[in-house]
Amino acid sequence: MLTLLTDFGTQDAYVGVMKGVIAQINPQLTVVDLTHAVPPQDIASARFNLMNAFPYFPKETVHVVVVDPGVGSQRRAIAIRCGDATHADGYIVAPDNGVASGVLAQWDPTTLTIVDLTNTHYWRTPTPSATFHGRDIFAPVGAHLASGTPIEHLGSQVTVDSLVSFPIEPPQCHQQSITGSIQYIDHFGNLITNIPGDTVTKSAWSVRLGEVTMPAGATYSTSPPGHPLALVGSHGWVEIAVNRGNAAQSLQRSVSDPVKVLLH
Amino acid sequence: MLTLLTDFGTQDAYVGVMKGVIAQINPQLTVVDLTHAVPPQDIASARFNLMNAFPYFPKETVHVVVVDPGVGSQRRAIAIRCGDATHADGYIVAPDNGVASGVLAQWDPTTLTIVDLTNTHYWRTPTPSATFHGRDIFAPVGAHLASGTPIEHLGSQVTVDSLVSFPIEPPQCHQQSITGSIQYIDHFGNLITNIPGDTVTKSAWSVRLGEVTMPAGATYSTSPPGHPLALVGSHGWVEIAVNRGNAAQSLQRSVSDPVKVLLH
Amino acid sequence: MLTLLTDFGTQDAYVGVMKGVIAQINPQLTVVDLTHAVPPQDIASARFNLMNAFPYFPKETVHVVVVDPGVGSQRRAIAIRCGDATHADGYIVAPDNGVASGVLAQWDPTTLTIVDLTNTHYWRTPTPSATFHGRDIFAPVGAHLASGTPIEHLGSQVTVDSLVSFPIEPPQCHQQSITGSIQYIDHFGNLITNIPGDTVTKSAWSVRLGEVTMPAGATYSTSPPGHPLALVGSHGWVEIAVNRGNAAQSLQRSVSDPVKVLLH
Repeated sequence: MLTLLTDFGTQDAYVGVMKGVIAQINPQLTVVDLTHAVPPQDIASARFNLMNAFPYFPKETVHVVVVDPGVGSQRRAIAIRCGDATHADGYIVAPDNGVASGVLAQWDPTTLTIVDLTNTHYWRTPTPSATFHGRDIFAPVGAHLASGTPIEHLGSQVTVDSLVSFPIEPPQCHQQSITGSIQYIDHFGNLITNIPGDTVTKSAWSVRLGEVTMPAGATYSTSPPGHPLALVGSHGWVEIAVNRGNAAQSLQRSVSDPVKVLLH
Repeated sequence: MLTLLTDFGTQDAYVGVMKGVIAQINPQLTVVDLTHAVPPQDIASARFNLMNAFPYFPKETVHVVVVDPGVGSQRRAIAIRCGDATHADGYIVAPDNGVASGVLAQWDPTTLTIVDLTNTHYWRTPTPSATFHGRDIFAPVGAHLASGTPIEHLGSQVTVDSLVSFPIEPPQCHQQSITGSIQYIDHFGNLITNIPGDTVTKSAWSVRLGEVTMPAGATYSTSPPGHPLALVGSHGWVEIAVNRGNAAQSLQRSVSDPVKVLLH
Repeated sequence: MLTLLTDFGTQDAYVGVMKGVIAQINPQLTVVDLTHAVPPQDIASARFNLMNAFPYFPKETVHVVVVDPGVGSQRRAIAIRCGDATHADGYIVAPDNGVASGVLAQWDPTTLTIVDLTNTHYWRTPTPSATFHGRDIFAPVGAHLASGTPIEHLGSQVTVDSLVSFPIEPPQCHQQSITGSIQYIDHFGNLITNIPGDTVTKSAWSVRLGEVTMPAGATYSTSPPGHPLALVGSHGWVEIAVNRGNAAQSLQRSVSDPVKVLLH
């Protein structure tokens, strides 16, 4: 199984072309779309979606990520194995631009194997286009990996420390509060913060966002329709929502805006 | 085979996560997207799309619907079998909020088997998140059902009468006319009414929409480009279209607006 | 394997219905979406996407195209085989409206087999709806073809010359310049011209678009962020882009606008 996560949109046939290339290598592979609506070149958004999807896929799944503002420049292309060599928890094939940082933060570096994708034998062609490495490098390498090619064959091993790092900014924990920010806004307008849910489970809490203070609840319907609340979302982060509404629109907030959790 | 119909959009990886959960249970299942662009929490829109797609899928197909404004509240989660136990015409797995009403209206209640999804053994976890039952209940239950688990194992049986009802409003039939309304507007701007096509096949007819009267035709090209017409659409309902145009934009109409069929 | 290319959008279940019809005929087929976001009835846009995707799929792949402003009128429905009868390079199933012209231009007419889809045995029903031939003719015929039905069984053979022709307008080549136009704008706002990339590889070149002259580069990053450049895109056409930006927005250009390549 192989997943695709790109900023290609679905207006053009670019994603279809990647699936064609994959099928030319192995027509038996199942290909799942994570999303292709990452805003163009928005590495943070891709990082968030990859991190949240990774744990829910079968072992050995290969996640191919093509959000690649540096395509054609000297940036490296990499493959990562998370976990055991004989039964990996998952693979990532991506440009070395930090898009995998969210997943990598959850793994002990000693359990990771990383290679620089220099072996052109596994590319679609040894002379790839300068603008579409998704088609010419990432999709074919992902297809070979998902078909059983050992990751060590794809290129030379490199260390975690050598990777471009783009960590999620950690929140600041104080005596009676935690200050963080909005890291992602989803389709429903839910404001997802960088504050892990397990930091708020020990006591009662509420959230302050600009001039608004809202209560914490277990689920959307603990607030009346149209009213905001805070909760620990399904992805494990503190999230601000409006019951049967759109928090991003109602509260007029955007990514990076500050958020404060008040611990009572 | 399993289909997904949600209001999750395709901007985030939520749909991908459901597919990952399904593949963890049974990687052999084929998953088809009906649509994920149902407007947030719009049960009527989901009901329309499910009703129109249901007859075109193979027997035994499981349709998983997650349009669920009451997630985390006391609303029930249900599974429905339509038709014969040994070779069902199809299954629906959904919140009990009326989203299945369009399909259910087409079946004799004695041919339906309905269960309340209380058996946590078939959930992803006995302690589901309060906000993402698509991932934690509906997708895994759908995957088990599509893999051969008998519906009776999923929970206790309930009656059709106990379900939340949300029927499509019937049109009113008069001597020389039928009055109804717009129930759905599709991607092309076609205005789909709640008037069944078989009510207009016995005589010549035309349609009145606000100030405009338009002729009935067999196909779009019976009107000149840019001109409106009425026809019986591919889904079997009376529909108002503009040849090579967008009726919703040209005629400035929206869902629930009244429509009158004139029988000549 | 079978691909789908339509202007149906993904808001409704129309595409899902086509996949249901395909699965009723052969549940083993793999179905790939090329795109469903072709602007309604925009044959040129569909032609571009089909032409660029076709070479990247496995042999024997069937491409089903439903961009069909003439549905229900007298326009023909056709199937095309490209290449050898025993191991075809690919098939196209589509209305006869020029949507296949981009692919057909790349094949010697003697290597093409074309049939008029008159054999109703391979339709979903001999009495198709007047408005949804995707469901009633194109999807089922595509499914039968992908399942091994010989193309000759689908209807009577017709000649290439009898097809509706809709060729891509060729650019005009002068001594020191080539004049062409924008044929397509993609999701990233890249302006793709009708000038083949192999016409600019012999010497240094630049591009003039309205008042702006921009340098040619090998890849996006040869220009500073926010600056325009010209390059040969991954599809093989001369393309105008803005590094880490959106050329269509920055340069305020649209399809059919003239472009001039200057050869130095």
